[in-house]
Amino acid sequence: MSDGMERDVVAPRGRPVTLRDVAKDAGVSVATASKALNDQGRMTAETRTRIQEAARRLGFRPNGLAQSLLRRRSFTVGMLTNDTYGRFSLPVMAGISEALVDNGVSVFLCNVEDDPRLGQLHVDAMLEKRVDGIIATGKRIDRQLPVDLSRLGVPVIYAFTEPDPNSIAFVSDDEGGARLAVEHFIRLGRRRIAHVTGPTTFTVVHRRAEAYRAVLAEAGLPVGPVLMGRWSESWGRDAVAELFGEGGSAPDAIFCGNDQIARGVIDALRERGIDVPGSVGVVGFDNWEIVAAESRPPLTTVDMNLVTLGREAGMTLLSLVDGKPVEPGIRKLPCRLVVRQSCGRPLDG
Amino acid sequence: MSDGMERDVVAPRGRPVTLRDVAKDAGVSVATASKALNDQGRMTAETRTRIQEAARRLGFRPNGLAQSLLRRRSFTVGMLTNDTYGRFSLPVMAGISEALVDNGVSVFLCNVEDDPRLGQLHVDAMLEKRVDGIIATGKRIDRQLPVDLSRLGVPVIYAFTEPDPNSIAFVSDDEGGARLAVEHFIRLGRRRIAHVTGPTTFTVVHRRAEAYRAVLAEAGLPVGPVLMGRWSESWGRDAVAELFGEGGSAPDAIFCGNDQIARGVIDALRERGIDVPGSVGVVGFDNWEIVAAESRPPLTTVDMNLVTLGREAGMTLLSLVDGKPVEPGIRKLPCRLVVRQSCGRPLDG
Repeated sequence: MSDGMERDVVAPRGRPVTLRDVAKDAGVSVATASKALNDQGRMTAETRTRIQEAARRLGFRPNGLAQSLLRRRSFTVGMLTNDTYGRFSLPVMAGISEALVDNGVSVFLCNVEDDPRLGQLHVDAMLEKRVDGIIATGKRIDRQLPVDLSRLGVPVIYAFTEPDPNSIAFVSDDEGGARLAVEHFIRLGRRRIAHVTGPTTFTVVHRRAEAYRAVLAEAGLPVGPVLMGRWSESWGRDAVAELFGEGGSAPDAIFCGNDQIARGVIDALRERGIDVPGSVGVVGFDNWEIVAAESRPPLTTVDMNLVTLGREAGMTLLSLVDGKPVEPGIRKLPCRLVVRQSCGRPLDG
Repeated sequence: MSDGMERDVVAPRGRPVTLRDVAKDAGVSVATASKALNDQGRMTAETRTRIQEAARRLGFRPNGLAQSLLRRRSFTVGMLTNDTYGRFSLPVMAGISEALVDNGVSVFLCNVEDDPRLGQLHVDAMLEKRVDGIIATGKRIDRQLPVDLSRLGVPVIYAFTEPDPNSIAFVSDDEGGARLAVEHFIRLGRRRIAHVTGPTTFTVVHRRAEAYRAVLAEAGLPVGPVLMGRWSESWGRDAVAELFGEGGSAPDAIFCGNDQIARGVIDALRERGIDVPGSVGVVGFDNWEIVAAESRPPLTTVDMNLVTLGREAGMTLLSLVDGKPVEPGIRKLPCRLVVRQSCGRPLDG
């Protein structure tokens, strides 16, 4: 342990231990200490061990910045988002982080909001820090971030946001998700299926509505009313007033564009004395746990698997950084149906 | 623009422009190019301008890593959180980012969950990258992150998580927030005020309940029932069944420990035909927009100002990094009451 020399063995509180501290402690030059810790240079095994021991004992951490310069990789990735609210981008970001951190890569998170100036500022900062790549993510798959990422000189992946042409992107398969919901109703024997969804300005609203119509047509069932409105509980309640207001054949199933709408639909049906799922089945979209699980009854809903989507995006970025070839294009990842209690058992079963 | 020499003026696609590219383009040595861009060395004004012009035209970005080594600051900060869900930490993190980015500092976000091994891994990665400081944040102010940050050699700030002793921390003033709610009821003429809140295992539950009792005692009003249960809508509904079930004097106001409880309380009161705010006023806690604004009626609630809290934490970390003295201790930042429609006008007014 001690070789008899009297030395300052502990660096002053409040600053990191440097290579100089290690060298001093081991009684060698800084150059020798550096070589010993990098397994380079000529020295006796005993000297090398003494230096390594000193480094360990003092808690020396090699300077990541300097090492990165040598290896020409920074082992950091920039993540851009415009989602201050985080409901969709949070699970995506969690998946991305998971993939990267498991592979020893750190993540710079930057919120660019919808501000091109802020976007450019963040991208410049990322490039200045020599990130190995950038992942762009956001709150809508049909809106671009306010920055041009097409010619940065580092790999870029898009996840749950509108990509540049010829880039690599990961989005949810909204048509597939809608299919799962409508096919579930049909399997359960529901025949008059309505669709209550969000604003017409969202691409996913049209994609899900098209899939809804296609599944019904394939099954030889009538296409019910499609009501487009808002992404809110109050719209769900308004839609129920519309669907069940006057005479005509009320639906026995309602496929909702998100969980908040579904929540409003379920509340309004209960307040009208209409039993869910007895008389009407309800399916939501998003599997927003806190809304879906607290509904009365708990909500069957489509989960976009956003954590998995983020993880795939992260793994693909790492492949690109490693120089592996990746085909450009948009990958649509499958959704899954989370069955709770708002659809009941088969009506004919 | 062109000085007649024929050169490759564009770096190959797919890699960043280097100082070497700039030097080649300007027809000077790398050393001269470096001096010109750092405003150092001796050269004619024309040469300096030509080099700077080439750097600008090629889109050269100085190497942030190398510059950081010279300045002994990385202009990055690590942010540790254990909140995968993000409802509280998201606004805190948004505030922190805002403060740091405005000052040219980038943020490493790391989710350590409740895993000490993962925590240590992230902290090591941050130190290896020579972050200038670390901010720890989490989902509960009465729980520590699973890492010891007390002797890292870099400044550490705690925001909305249990701090180490003798550290600097920012938390919400829960007593003050509860006071705002109960005083609001008293001002409006409510006299039988109940408190329905979360689990006894949360420190804030006791802090808010104590403030509730103190305000009533100061006003000479009876302390109503205090029901501790869960942080959920269903608990809010159960609590209404308890409060309004049998005879005795039902409350004319209910202060709820969070917005989900308040939402459940309001729904249950409506389903019993009890008018809110006519017969009973309701106040929530958190100002969780999507719950509070969609309640029927929209919910008056306490906002913990978490974005501001994050911003203060970020600014304080920057002060520490700059070497300015900051007193250790826990700062409690004030809440504010967001008035919507669940309390009504003064009863005696």
